Amino acid sequence: MSRVESDGCRETGLRLDPKWDAAGLVTAVVSDAVSGELLMVAHMNADALAATLATGEAHFWSRSRGELWHKGATSGHVQRIVEMRIDCDQDALWLKVEPAGPACHTGERSCFFRAVTSDGLVRG
Amino acid sequence: MSRVESDGCRETGLRLDPKWDAAGLVTAVVSDAVSGELLMVAHMNADALAATLATGEAHFWSRSRGELWHKGATSGHVQRIVEMRIDCDQDALWLKVEPAGPACHTGERSCFFRAVTSDGLVRG
Repeated sequence: MSRVESDGCRETGLRLDPKWDAAGLVTAVVSDAVSGELLMVAHMNADALAATLATGEAHFWSRSRGELWHKGATSGHVQRIVEMRIDCDQDALWLKVEPAGPACHTGERSCFFRAVTSDGLVRG
Repeated sequence: MSRVESDGCRETGLRLDPKWDAAGLVTAVVSDAVSGELLMVAHMNADALAATLATGEAHFWSRSRGELWHKGATSGHVQRIVEMRIDCDQDALWLKVEPAGPACHTGERSCFFRAVTSDGLVRG
């Protein structure tokens, strides 16, 4: 494979070329940039990705509401982007953020507030 | 809401009740239990989740191959589960693992080996 071909390759190249699914979405995984804790998993469409890049604050596509979702627009709990990374096949984004408040609508800092054990779920 | 009702609720209760999508899958986010680095994003069906819980090693559902995928079965790069957590609506799992080798099929330690910038992707 020539260098030019390699550069154009979604898996190894340096061109942002998200692999949108049938609904026009990629997975967005959000973690706390300082603690490393996984905060939430959401989805982005092209508009959400563009808005995130333009503003430096996390935007998603709300599948339940069918609309662009500026995280924290209502609650004030915005997520400032420290770094954004993309995976090999460009169908998942990793957002390292500085959160201004809880990520979860339940009020928990992280949506992953329960551990899975062979006996069920455990809080904390 | 009574305590009993609360205990049975998918969002706040302690019963493992994954919210499988139309394809019978949930998202599985895998991070390194020590470094916190996000390694990969994959999917699990009920069989993959059961096999993961039973063996303590990560199993996924390969959407491309349409089969149960014991990560590392061929390469030796198994991922030992240190802890598994689930999110509020139970459609995403977080696996903290001890990886025996690179997570990515490209040979990179993590699938997220490129950063997204307004000028494109940057390695490292």
